[in-house]
Amino acid sequence: MVSDGHGASLQSGKSSQPGKFITLEGTEGVGKTTNLEFIQSYLRAKGVPLCVTREPGGTPLAEQVRELLLAKRDETVDETAELLLIFAARAQHLNQVIQPALARGEWVLSDRFTDATYAYQGAGRGLSCEVIATLEQLVQGELRPDLTIVLDIDVATGLARASQRAALDRFELEAVEFFEAVRQGYQARVTANPDRYRVVDAGQDLSAVQSDLKLVLDQLLP
Amino acid sequence: MVSDGHGASLQSGKSSQPGKFITLEGTEGVGKTTNLEFIQSYLRAKGVPLCVTREPGGTPLAEQVRELLLAKRDETVDETAELLLIFAARAQHLNQVIQPALARGEWVLSDRFTDATYAYQGAGRGLSCEVIATLEQLVQGELRPDLTIVLDIDVATGLARASQRAALDRFELEAVEFFEAVRQGYQARVTANPDRYRVVDAGQDLSAVQSDLKLVLDQLLP
Ligand SMILES: Nc1ncnc2c1ncn2[C@@H]1O[C@H](COP(=O)(O)OP(=O)(O)OP(=O)(O)O)[C@@H](O)[C@H]1O
Ligand SMILES: Nc1ncnc2c1ncn2[C@@H]1O[C@H](COP(=O)(O)OP(=O)(O)OP(=O)(O)O)[C@@H](O)[C@H]1O
Ligand SMILES: [Mg+2]
Ligand SMILES: [Mg+2]
Repeated sequence: MVSDGHGASLQSGKSSQPGKFITLEGTEGVGKTTNLEFIQSYLRAKGVPLCVTREPGGTPLAEQVRELLLAKRDETVDETAELLLIFAARAQHLNQVIQPALARGEWVLSDRFTDATYAYQGAGRGLSCEVIATLEQLVQGELRPDLTIVLDIDVATGLARASQRAALDRFELEAVEFFEAVRQGYQARVTANPDRYRVVDAGQDLSAVQSDLKLVLDQLLP
Repeated sequence: MVSDGHGASLQSGKSSQPGKFITLEGTEGVGKTTNLEFIQSYLRAKGVPLCVTREPGGTPLAEQVRELLLAKRDETVDETAELLLIFAARAQHLNQVIQPALARGEWVLSDRFTDATYAYQGAGRGLSCEVIATLEQLVQGELRPDLTIVLDIDVATGLARASQRAALDRFELEAVEFFEAVRQGYQARVTANPDRYRVVDAGQDLSAVQSDLKLVLDQLLP
């Protein structure tokens, strides 16, 4: 099941980027990393030159910042410090990896990007959208993804999947209400700007998720 | 030799902070860390309850960010990423260490603070003052140091001192022109807001520097 706000065509997006910038979003355990592999194979098979990356991270320095962010620690992590670390990693990632790839004509596929900041630090932690928007403008200028795929699932199912996988990181230790707020944060982003988003029901079995993903990607392919 | 812009009294500062917040600034090797020890002993001997700290750093997380900032690396460090890392560490430091100490009625003495950001990332790297001011406002609100002591020395003498000390970090590898710009950046801060600053000639021998520091501190003591 794929849904968008009002059936707008993604192909009509008037991006000035040489390549398309696609981001994959959703709460914990929704299947972002699993489906990134699938999307990558699908696009490569169509001959799309592709740079696959993730956030926070994507460069050696930005991956070190990711480690600082995910580490469980005795120290309380200030919410503004967390937000600034995320945008620091993003500035490095954008300038060293994403922008150069787009400039070379490649497509970029990222496991999370700034929508995650609006969802986790904004809706989840309660930081103001205006502050996030200020940092987004500072770091990204006008650059936004051409397409953001939101994998959506009820929070309990996602957490159950994630907890079967590995030890929980600092974010995964949050309470269910936090992830409910994050999920609603993503939904609010989609509602506010439906052109850029496609929501895929990630509660389906993997083959159904992936045929939905094909439909979404086919809209973007020439 | 101690100079300020127009001889304003520091004691008349109408800070609402219970304790005073003092920062020590200046280019590489000017003697900040050396004189921090001296200031600490002097204030403690006067019975001032004191929290001594440094930037970037001052908490376990912020010290980890400091390591990321100072490490020499093959990767080009994006200037905005550097700026955001510095303010991330500052948010953590301020909320976990500086504000709680001031609230307990302690004085805080920090080896560098936001003036270093204006001098190094602003004047040195060429980032805009407006962007730095936006981040300062976001992280600090209205909090500013009550007194900033700028140790001033010609760049060559400072670098010679610093290079005799230890292996150079990522900042210390910059060219002389960079440090000239940083020094001028500090001078511009003093000129723009002379009430808050005292400039001490750090080219003097250490005992002369320290008697100047005593004069400055005596103005602040009750
Ligand atoms: N549609 C699906 N049905 C059943 N299991 C799935 C489905 N999609 C993913 N999984 C499983 O759920 C677990 C979490 O998936 P994955 O790691 O891809 O999620 P994620 O969104 O990347 O999580 P995180 O936010 O923690 O990075 C994995 O074990 C994966 O195999
Ligand atoms: N007035 C002085 N005269 C001579 N040597 C000095 C004087 N002040 C400091 N030094 C010496 O200069 C060196 C650098 O001093 P210090 O480490 O305190 O500088 P700093 O400003 O903290 O440098 P950095 O910016 O790298 O942290 C040390 O070896 C110190 O002993
Ligand atoms: Mg994942
Ligand atoms: Mg020092």
